[in-house]
This record gives sequence, structure tokens and C-alpha cells, in this order.
Amino acid sequence: MFENESTICAISTAAGTGAIAIIRLSGTDSFKIAEKIIVKKDSFSKLSPKKLLYSEIVDSENKIIDEVLIVKFIAPHSFTGENMVEIYCHGSEFIQNKILESLIYNSATIAKRGEFSQRAFLNGKIDLSQAEAIADLISSSNATSHKIAINQMRGGFKNELSFLRENLLKFLTLLELELDFSEEDVEFADRKELLNLAEIILKKLAQLSDSFKLGNVLKKGIHVSIVGKTNVGKSSLLNLLLNEEKAIVSEIHGTTRDVIEDTKIIDGIKFRFIDTAGIRETKDVVETLGIEKTIQKIKESDIIIYLIDATENFENIQKNITNFFNENDLESKKCVFAINKIDLVDNQRLNNVREKLNFNNKAELIFISAKEKQIENLTDFLIKVSKTLQINESEIIVTNIRHYESLLKSKNSIENVILGLEKNISGDFISQDIRECLHYLGEITGKITNDEILGNIFKNFCIGK
Amino acid sequence: MFENESTICAISTAAGTGAIAIIRLSGTDSFKIAEKIIVKKDSFSKLSPKKLLYSEIVDSENKIIDEVLIVKFIAPHSFTGENMVEIYCHGSEFIQNKILESLIYNSATIAKRGEFSQRAFLNGKIDLSQAEAIADLISSSNATSHKIAINQMRGGFKNELSFLRENLLKFLTLLELELDFSEEDVEFADRKELLNLAEIILKKLAQLSDSFKLGNVLKKGIHVSIVGKTNVGKSSLLNLLLNEEKAIVSEIHGTTRDVIEDTKIIDGIKFRFIDTAGIRETKDVVETLGIEKTIQKIKESDIIIYLIDATENFENIQKNITNFFNENDLESKKCVFAINKIDLVDNQRLNNVREKLNFNNKAELIFISAKEKQIENLTDFLIKVSKTLQINESEIIVTNIRHYESLLKSKNSIENVILGLEKNISGDFISQDIRECLHYLGEITGKITNDEILGNIFKNFCIGK
Repeated sequence: MFENESTICAISTAAGTGAIAIIRLSGTDSFKIAEKIIVKKDSFSKLSPKKLLYSEIVDSENKIIDEVLIVKFIAPHSFTGENMVEIYCHGSEFIQNKILESLIYNSATIAKRGEFSQRAFLNGKIDLSQAEAIADLISSSNATSHKIAINQMRGGFKNELSFLRENLLKFLTLLELELDFSEEDVEFADRKELLNLAEIILKKLAQLSDSFKLGNVLKKGIHVSIVGKTNVGKSSLLNLLLNEEKAIVSEIHGTTRDVIEDTKIIDGIKFRFIDTAGIRETKDVVETLGIEKTIQKIKESDIIIYLIDATENFENIQKNITNFFNENDLESKKCVFAINKIDLVDNQRLNNVREKLNFNNKAELIFISAKEKQIENLTDFLIKVSKTLQINESEIIVTNIRHYESLLKSKNSIENVILGLEKNISGDFISQDIRECLHYLGEITGKITNDEILGNIFKNFCIGK
Repeated sequence: MFENESTICAISTAAGTGAIAIIRLSGTDSFKIAEKIIVKKDSFSKLSPKKLLYSEIVDSENKIIDEVLIVKFIAPHSFTGENMVEIYCHGSEFIQNKILESLIYNSATIAKRGEFSQRAFLNGKIDLSQAEAIADLISSSNATSHKIAINQMRGGFKNELSFLRENLLKFLTLLELELDFSEEDVEFADRKELLNLAEIILKKLAQLSDSFKLGNVLKKGIHVSIVGKTNVGKSSLLNLLLNEEKAIVSEIHGTTRDVIEDTKIIDGIKFRFIDTAGIRETKDVVETLGIEKTIQKIKESDIIIYLIDATENFENIQKNITNFFNENDLESKKCVFAINKIDLVDNQRLNNVREKLNFNNKAELIFISAKEKQIENLTDFLIKVSKTLQINESEIIVTNIRHYESLLKSKNSIENVILGLEKNISGDFISQDIRECLHYLGEITGKITNDEILGNIFKNFCIGK
């Protein structure tokens, strides 16, 4: 077990006043320190683990702070793997701070961000990817990021990587055995089998690193840009989608000069909507800057809503659409043309639009009226498209940039292994590349790590976790 | 036991994201509902009370929401007196809401504010004064209000009142026994003994209702007004006392037109500091209104800091002090004259001030420099005075206006009892007054109550308590 002198404490529930709050203690001296402030010392010392005890707790002057429930966890059967105590007190901030104060008075120290999880990792209770998943889980704000994080916390990622590492290690051992017997020129490691494994590993690593783009989209939200000429109702639509007055709506062309964006969860999926400045010729410098930003935003989008004014003349609309396709690379994007202001035109007109406008099958066409709040067609489209981005229950998705980078590096190493095998180079070079690959895989789970990496990971955790 | 059909649930920790959150269930079906979302159903059904169980929990589609700790409390051995379940989950808001959603899907209902405490009261686990003390405890923000609330929660108030009620009831029984035998003209209840008891009760009730003023001061904070001529540095002093830039400081006379106030906890005691508009002749209407408010604020204060500019001439200072004493009724207030700007004058001058100014022993005199941040003399004075307002460990302090009103009414009834006894009126009138007194005392502990009163009390609780 990782030995740590200090016993740490922290408030583990959300900041502020609630009905109940939780104070946590972890470290060798947890029981000794807790006993100092507990009135029913005897019951506490005899208390079996994971059983709640009711007791008053007191401050350094023996004045009652609160009536609480207390539980102890005996190492290694706790979250951190150390002795732990949890105190469930009344949720006034005064009481929470008073209890912390008393614990510190009895020589506990305040936990740093993520220090409980860090200890859990150092004591081998969880690997690094699981520790990171806990932080992701706590900050998850929608069904998708929650699902990815819980998969990862439950060790999905860890298990995939362990499997790869174990198989690689087996070959490494064989290869290095060969080196010991190099004078005898034997091959313990079947090169064909190794090549086979390396290719399986490469495929898996490619799959995992490829999942990062999707993972990132799902974690950060699906980028949806709203584009179109000025005054077609982009800001009104954004407000409707967000259910709030985010963008200023006016009838003056070019009201939205800046790029406005915000996220909204629809049907459990996080969308990041971006209202762009209208695309039109302008001499206004500020507006020009806005339009440049628009083009940039289109590049970064997953979905583009191209908004069209139903009352505008056909030729103009068609010209704009053609320009839009020519000017933007829409290869990997989903695009929808939304005909707005259908409240202002008749059915004849809408049928004409449907028949005559040419999208080259590159986009869908839907009809909406932002003014009349008829946008279900559009939200249905968004949900439908995003479902294709959804993940399976068991699928492992990489969302962490640190993991992604390590995966790319290990992928590179395994490619070198394959290259070496194909060129039939000597075992010691191949074993060098396998070692490299193992090293990078180890970085993800924390088998290979250093204080700086750990510090960077855990500083982003919340207090008390 | 109070029978309630519904099983309620709520998030009991503070709103927002934390490392851990607590979800509570209370009601007959708590175990049945919890079992629906718990994966380890078997272990849960066999789980002994107050023992933590680790399990996954799932949503209505059997998808894992989180890995949690779960505990059950079997009626009547729980806070509410009903079957209860507590779930300790990861503190993401998404998870908290998802768990609530799943409980509601399995026919739990969302708890109203204070509904757990209300059930605890209705099931006789706590009396009404204790339930109210829990709300006070949770909202207590300083040592004093915390101490008062914890005394009351631990039943101090309840015990005092029970003692009074029991003794009164004894006499009531004897008096009513007399009425049954009225034709025989016997006296079971010794009138002298009854008078004796009534006087003890009156004394106690007077003591309790008198404590309300102090209790109120301690709960709401000690009112400290800062008064004085314009430009003597009142706003600078307020900012110093509050450690922040609350009042706008300028050299223009009459900058502070409004009454500015805020609270600050010094040495565990809550002070409510009030910066007033300067007292001087003015033709500015807005400023005149400010000065009227000042006079009002002086009336409401517990402590007055009269600020004086050390550089001003003696005659003016003395005249203003005399006016101040004449214009304000300072009977029940503590008053301190603080000579400010001592950095601008020499010691000779300060000695003169000390010797020559006449306060008629109605106030203390201290020297400060707000500019040089030398105000320890003043804060020491505030702490010293407020200590005289402090309460003993065991003293019962009434802080609740509802209790105060009931105490006044019961006091009135017991005075009628005494009057009746002295006038030697017949037993049935006396017993009527005793009944009334018992009624009002019962209102405090909740022996006598109605839905409207209960509704009013519990609606001020926090969610999940």
C-alpha cells in the first residue's frame, strides 16, 4: 500500500447550505482523529465497518457542534484503500466549517482537489483512466457524457488496454528470451503470430483513437451552426432553440455581428448552437470580421442549418445555395436547408420550393416558422442526425486528450513493430518498439507515470473527491 | 404512527455539483421502491438497518446510472419514524436528477420543503419546537445562532415547557375533580399551592418571552449604527469594519444619502452595521430623507458609534454631542464616541479631548484612525459589549416569533389564573384560564396545531429536510 503520513479531510458535498452535508477523512489516523470529536467514543471504537453510528460531535472546547451519523471504512476496504471516516451532518455551512476546523485542530489536513481519488489510484484501488472517469462522471451534464464516463469508470477502457498489454508483454518476454540465447539463433517468438497480434493491436488502437473525435463531440456537444443571409431569422431561431433571449433580434440587417453560441440539451444530447453573422457583402469592418468568423465556425461544425427566407425570390435563393456549396467544404458535415417564415407564404409557393430548388442531394430540406414557433421539423432532424453519432452501451469511447495522445504514440510504435516484422529486422529492434508501445499504453492506465502528470490530472478534480 | 400513503424522495445535499450527493426516500414503500432501481436486490432485501451496501443502480431501461452506497432505516428507527432509504451517489447533477427520476418512475413523489421534518413531527419523533430548531440550525451562520438552535433542537425548550404543562395539568385535574363534587363543596386543589405554582410559571414565561428580544438580536445580528456629522469618515469606517468597499467614499459632504447596511461576523458574533447619512442641516430633499432614516435607525440600534472628527473645534463637537443626547432616546442603547482621524492631530490635542469633552458618563470614548486602519479599539469595544449579550450554554432563548406570541398569550392566561385565585373566584373560571394557558403552551410544541400552522412552518424549510 502507498504510505502517506497525513490524514486528509474535506467537505464532499456541493458547496453551500443543504439539509445534509458529508465530511470525509482518509488516512492512517482517521479513526484516532474522528474519535477526538465524537462523543460516543466507545461505541465508535467498537463500531463495525460500514455501519452508521449516531452521535454528537464536539469542538475543541467540548461544545456540541451537531448531532451526526458517522461511518468508518477499514483499510483496504474503502474508496481510497486507507482507513476512512464519513460524517453526515446538518448542512449549514457554519456546521460544515466547524467540523472541518475541529478535525484540523486534531491534526487532519485539508485535502487537495482530487486527493481522495489520487490516493485510491496510488493504493491500486483504481487505475488512472478510472480516476479520470470519476472526474468526468461528476462533471457529466448529459446522458451521453454520463454513459461514456460510467463505462470508463467501470473499467471498460482499462480492460481493453490490459488485454492488449498482456498479449504484447508475452511476446516481449519471448523476444527477450531469444536475445539471451542469441548465439544459438533460435526463435521463441513466432514472427507470424506476433505480426498477427500486432495487426490486431493496431486495429484496436486505431479504433480507440478514432473514437476520440466522436467522444469529443459527444462530450463537448454537437456543434450546430446556423448560417444564412442577413435578416432571414437566424437569431430568432437560436433563441427558440435555446428557449431564451440570447441573441438580440431586430429587423435591421446585420444586427448579429459577433458569433453567439450556447449549449442546450435536447433529448439527452448536448448541442452547441452557434448563431453566425449573416453572409453578405459588407463594407462594415466589424461585420466583415464577423463573417470571417462565420466561415471558421462552419469548418468546425458537425451540423449546419442553412436558413432561407421563404419570401425571397427563387433565383437568389438558388444562387446563394450554389455559392454556399462552392465556398465551403461540407464533406464530413450534415447539412439541412430550413425554409423559414412559412407563415408568410402559401402552399403553392412551398411546393414550388420543394420541387425546384436544387441541393444536389447534399442536404435535407425542411420548412419552419421561427415566428410561429414551428420548429419541430428541425429539432426532429437534429435528434435524428445525432442518433447516428450515438454510442453503444458497451462501446469504449476515448474522450480524454491525454489518452488520445498516448494512443497515437502507441499506435505509431506498433506500426513500427509491424514494419520491422515485415522487413524481418532483428529481435532487439522489434522488442524496443514493443517496449515503447507498452510504455505509452501504460501512461493511460497510470502504470507509467510521474508526479507532474498526476498533479495535472488531479488538480482538475473537485474538492472532496 | 401517522399514516401517510405516499413515499417521498428528495436530494438532501446542497444544490449543484459535488463529489458526493445524498438522495433520501421516506415512507411505507421506501424499500420496495429502492429495490426497483438497485441491482443487488437480494443483498438489499437482507441488508441490516444502518449498514452501507455497495451496488449499482439502474434507470427504468435497466441502464446503469451510478455505483452508489445505500443504507436503510426501518420504522420507527429513522429520522421521520418511517421506513427510509438513503442513497450516496456521485455528485453530478445529471446523476442526482436521473436517480430522482427513476424513483419517481417507480412511484415515489417529490418531497415538499421540510416534508421529512414534518413527518418526523407527525410521527412524534420530534416536537414542533425541535423541528423549527432544525431549520434554524441549517440556516445558522454564526456561533450564537448555532448555539441557540442546537440547544432548542436537543429539546431544551421542549423540556422546560413540558415541565410547566405537567404541573398545570395536575392542578387542572384536581380543579375539575372539585367540579364533579361541587355539591359537596370540597377543595381538592390547594389554592395556595396553585397560586405558588402559577407564580413560578408566570416568572418562567416572563423569562422566556423576555429572552425573545435578546434571541432576536443574536439571531438577526447586533444592530450597530454609525452616526456623526457629514465627512467625519463614516463610510470609510463601515468599509473597514466590513473589509470591503460597500459604501462610496468621497470628500464631498453628504456622499452617503441612503442608509447602507451589511452584516459581518466578528469573533463569532453577527453584527449588522449601518452607515447613516450624516446628521446636518440640509436643503437637499433626498438627503433630508436620508437623515430622517438615520433617526429611525438610531431608534432600532443596539449599539451606536458616534464618529467625531479629531480636527474639528471643541465647541462644535461638544454642541453636537449635547444635541445628540437631547434629540435621541439612548436609554437602552450602548453608545461609544469614536474620535476619528487621530493621525491628523498630536497627543496634546487627544489629551485635551479626553479631559474636556463631556459625555455625562453616558458613553465610552475611544480613539481611532479609519485611514490608518487603526480601529482595534473599536472592534474590542464591540466584542466586549456584545459579550454582555451572550447566552449561557444551557440557557433557553426564544428566537421564534411564533413561540414568542404563544408565550405572551399563555403568560396572559396565567396572569388571569393568579388574578382569579387572589379574588378567590370559583374553580370553573380558574380551570378555564388554565386550559387556555395549556392551549397556548401546546401550540409551541405542536400538541395543539392545525394544517395551516404546519404548512406555514414547514414551507420555510429547505428541500430534502
